[in-house]
Order: sequence, then structure tokens, then C-alpha cells
Amino acid sequence: MKQTKYSLLLASAAAALLASSIVSADTLPSIVPAPADNPTTPEKVELGKQLFFDPRLSVDGTVSCNSCHNIMSSGTDNRPTSVGIDGQRGGRSAPTVWNAAFLSAQFWDGRAATLEEQAKGPPLNPIEMGMPSEAAVVERLNSIPGYVEQFKLAFGGKDAVSYDNMAKAIASFERTLITANSNYDRFLAGEKTAMSEQAQRGKKVFEQSGCNACHSGGNFAGPELPIGEGFYQKFPAIASDYDHKYKLSEDKGRFEVTKDRADMNKWRVPSLRNIALTAPYFHNGSVETLDEAVRVMAKTQLGLDINDQDVDDVVAFLQSLNGEFPDISMPRLPDTINSSQVGGMK
Amino acid sequence: MKQTKYSLLLASAAAALLASSIVSADTLPSIVPAPADNPTTPEKVELGKQLFFDPRLSVDGTVSCNSCHNIMSSGTDNRPTSVGIDGQRGGRSAPTVWNAAFLSAQFWDGRAATLEEQAKGPPLNPIEMGMPSEAAVVERLNSIPGYVEQFKLAFGGKDAVSYDNMAKAIASFERTLITANSNYDRFLAGEKTAMSEQAQRGKKVFEQSGCNACHSGGNFAGPELPIGEGFYQKFPAIASDYDHKYKLSEDKGRFEVTKDRADMNKWRVPSLRNIALTAPYFHNGSVETLDEAVRVMAKTQLGLDINDQDVDDVVAFLQSLNGEFPDISMPRLPDTINSSQVGGMK
Repeated sequence: MKQTKYSLLLASAAAALLASSIVSADTLPSIVPAPADNPTTPEKVELGKQLFFDPRLSVDGTVSCNSCHNIMSSGTDNRPTSVGIDGQRGGRSAPTVWNAAFLSAQFWDGRAATLEEQAKGPPLNPIEMGMPSEAAVVERLNSIPGYVEQFKLAFGGKDAVSYDNMAKAIASFERTLITANSNYDRFLAGEKTAMSEQAQRGKKVFEQSGCNACHSGGNFAGPELPIGEGFYQKFPAIASDYDHKYKLSEDKGRFEVTKDRADMNKWRVPSLRNIALTAPYFHNGSVETLDEAVRVMAKTQLGLDINDQDVDDVVAFLQSLNGEFPDISMPRLPDTINSSQVGGMK
Repeated sequence: MKQTKYSLLLASAAAALLASSIVSADTLPSIVPAPADNPTTPEKVELGKQLFFDPRLSVDGTVSCNSCHNIMSSGTDNRPTSVGIDGQRGGRSAPTVWNAAFLSAQFWDGRAATLEEQAKGPPLNPIEMGMPSEAAVVERLNSIPGYVEQFKLAFGGKDAVSYDNMAKAIASFERTLITANSNYDRFLAGEKTAMSEQAQRGKKVFEQSGCNACHSGGNFAGPELPIGEGFYQKFPAIASDYDHKYKLSEDKGRFEVTKDRADMNKWRVPSLRNIALTAPYFHNGSVETLDEAVRVMAKTQLGLDINDQDVDDVVAFLQSLNGEFPDISMPRLPDTINSSQVGGMK
């Protein structure tokens, strides 16, 4: 009897697990697993939020993470390419930070395996935040008593304030940036009116045309892969007039990272969650509207001349992937008394 | 008997009024009266908060009000002068938006009478937010459905979306940006340990030296005057080496507005509330630390060579004017579906 009960329990646990993994294949999990060396804690999340919004991570105090990945809206700046210090323009369009935690590789070309690794890039990039060195960032953080205190609280130890820990805190905050409960998710959960008829037609076009060959899974960004193993596709894959019109092949993509010719013009497949909110589109932000982006993708990836009705339907489907944005309290950035870290900047 | 009761009531009302006006002469009121044509409402405050944080009020989507008046910290950018679109530098240091609602004139030179009038400046300033015209701002706001809806809700009528109403909403939000309950305020209210002994010594130096001749009243920005009537002083008033060292006279101040020689190098007296948090100092942000700012003021305004002990004490007093910053929820900026207002910008 006891044995039977135990077996039943096991069986029902297995069924629950199965159900949960079936669901997670199509919908967005509400929690992102953190890496073993950076478990998520409230202290790190709060510190990471402050760092994310702090323009003092840029050399002249004008650019924060949020400048290009605006959490008050789409998690992007909705510009073709971003603007860093001194009005400098970057080469690629800022990807959204919302749900980035679900990706197995970061940046358009997957050159960072983790959120932690990604967060270390922009502060030192000379056309983004322009800090001269990791040491300079750490020195600045150490000059702000409220940060010193919080780094100690979040990480402990005498070297709590470090560039690595800065990245860990930012990554911990980013793991909270999830937009669940889209119309699509509610539709899948059984709420049949959550998606309009047009959106449902668009879902069929999306699936029958083969868009979901790459934009698969709960994040519509490809299969679940181990962290660091990105899911890459060539874009454009098929020659068309769009290539010239939107200069799609000019940037060599992942080839620039690996120098492997097999990676020429390959890109990490981006999520389609909230895609209706993140115009303009593609790695160079060259396409201004979502309907045109759908046409370009159909032609360059699937060789299809998609008709206007189908475009509209797919756009309606993609809109159903807009999620619920969580309420966030505004961080209070720790002050320095009597002087400013960027007070001597011209 | 009835008459007597009535007289007593009147007398006690007068006493209360007197008490309240005595208190309000030294501490910060917790509510700012709004102008008759723009009563504060929750709808305007919420709309104004979104507008304040929205970089789409700048032509290329990179600069919001908050970029230079950072509400997550001191209400300034803590830079000598601010950075607008295309990395352009402004000529004057951004004044804090905290408690600006208590000033009877806005901008360093008082060229705007009200918060409403002030808010209309930066969006059209070519080196700040760079919008080409009021009409262009209104057109952009009209292209964002969430704004159209909220303008209607806040202002009613068919021309609810207007440049004037944008400014009114921003001003309504700014009237909530008050930092009450500083150590100084709590000290005045009877909490004798709220100010350190050093801060109390500094208070005496501040008063006995005559700093409070100009930095008077609850906002330490001069006497209460009708809106539009700014309280101006010449700075520097007395010649010294500081003038050359920090280029204090280069900017002609209010003279640039009135072209009246009597206004040469005159400036609206700024509040000292949170002054310890808003380095660097003065209209050109040329002085990097508060202690040096105290020395400069003593010399150029009062002709005093203040000793180091007094400087430290005054700085401690000024720190006691740091207020409590209210909790604010992060606004969610209204999205546009499928396209971006700044998607075609280079």
C-alpha cells in the first residue's frame, strides 16, 4: 500500500513534469533559471536595477544601459542603431532586454554566452559607454558609498565591488524582465477569445509557411540549447532585391566573431516576443515597419512572395505575442555628497 | 455669546494661519499650489510622468526631460553642462527639478514664469531635444494612441493633444517632486538630534555671515514672490580671483533676456535644498565640489575669506537640507504597434 502510494506520487510528479515541459515548449516560463555561480537574490536584483539605470557607468555620465534598452517601453530604443557617448552611432540595432534571459547566447552575433558576459561589453565599448577600463569602472563604483554597501550586502567578501559582480547584479535584474501572459499565451491556456480570428489565421500562416522552423519554442527564438550554444541562421538566406534595398548582407554577422566562412551572415535567431513593439527591424534596423519585415523574412528565408492578406494576418498574430510588462518601482541611485563623478567632464 | 464664539474661532484661525505661515517661512510645504488654469489631477500627473521620461519628445529619440533632470538621483545630470541630441553641449548647468515648483521664476535667468512655460523650452531647443516645431511635437504625440487617449482623459475636448497641454501635464507631474523631511526640517520641528552639532554650528555661520540674506525662506531661494517675479542677485557681486579661475562673469545671465544693463550677470537665486547632491556648481558648472562653492560664495557675495572649519561646518549644514525623495513607480511609455516614431532616424 505504501509502495503503491509512492508510485502514484512518482507517476503524478512525472506527469506534472511532462505537462510542464510540454507547456514550456510553447509558452514563456515565468522564472528563468540562474547559473550556479550567480543565484538570483533580492539584493542582487535591486543593485542590478540601480546599475542598469545609472548613467555613471558611462564615462561622461550620459548613457545608461536603459538609454538603449528602455525598460519603460520595448526594451529597445526603437532606433535603427543606438547613440552612445558624444553622439556616436553604433553599427547594430539594440536588441530588446525583455526576455533576453531565455536566450542561450547574447548579442546579435552570439559573442557572449550569458547575460553576465553580455553586461560587461557596453561599459567598455568606446562608442557606447566609453569607460577606459574595468578598473576605471570599479574605481567609480567604489567612489559611491551606497554602491559599496550594496555590493557587500549582495556578494560579501572584501572584494565585493568588482567588474564581475557588477555584471552579475545586472544579469540578476535582467532575469526578472519577463513578459508573460500575452494574448497568445492565454489562448494556448484555453482562453479561446484571447486571440482574434485574424491572429489565429496568422498563426496558421506562420506555421504552414515554416516561420516556426526557426522561430520555435516558447520564446519563438529556436530550440532550447545549452547556455553558450546559440541558435544561428543565415540572413538573408535566399538572394532577393531586399538584400540591396536594405543592405542586409553588408554586416557579416557571426563571421566577425569566428572568422569561419560557414558563419558568414549568420545571426542569432531573435525572439518574436513583443516584436510588434521593437521597430525598426533586423540587425541594422533598416526596415521601418513590421509588415515590411514579414515580407522580407518570407522572401529571404523561405523564398515566398507573401500576399497582403497573409502579411496582415501574420502581423496580427505577432501582435498577440506582446506580453504583460511587470510593474517596477523606480530605482533611487545612490548619491555622492559634495561632488560628482562626472563633474569635471566637458 | 454667539459673537464671542465667532471671534474666538476667527482668532484661533488667525493664529493657525500665522503659525502656518511662520513654519512655511522656514520649512518646505508638502503641497505646491497649482495655477488656476492648470489644477493638479492624478490623470495629468500620470501623463506628465510618462512625457517626462519619454525620449520621443526629442527629434531622434535619445533625450528625455529625465536625461538632464534625473529624478532617480539629484534631479540634475551632475555634469557641468548637459548633453543634448548629437552630443551637443549646452551652455549652462541643468538646475534640479526637485522643488522647482516652489520657485517664482524658472531657468537660471528666470526667462520662464511658470513650470508650464519652462517645459515648452527644451523640446524645441536645437541643442537639447531638437524638435523642429510645436506642430511636429503634437504630430508625434498624436501618432501614439496611448497618449491621445490620456490627453483626452486629462484635458477633455477635441484638441486635447496640444503643446500647451503637454507642458501642463509635465508641470503637474513636477509639482509632485518635493523633498520634505530633511534633517533640517525635522530639527526645526523639534527633533533636536536630527542635525549634528557640526551642522548646527554651520547653520549659525550661514546665518551670521549673511548667506540667508539671499538664500532665505523654506526653499532657501529667497522671499516668496508672485509667480513670474523672480528673485535675482548679481553673481559674482564682488571682484576676486575666483571670477577668472571659474569664468564666472562670462555668461551675462539675465541681461541676455532683458538687455537691461542693470541685469548684467544677474541670476535667479537657486534653492539650497539638496545642494550637496547636485555638484558641480553654479550656472556654468565650473566648481566641482561643495566646499569650494561655499568659499566662492563667501568671497564673491559677502567679501569673506572663510576659514576651513567654517567651510566644513557650512557644508555639514547644507547636507542637512537633503530631503526625503518620494517613492515613484516607473512609468510605462505608451507603445506604437508595428512602427517607431524614430525608426527612420540616422
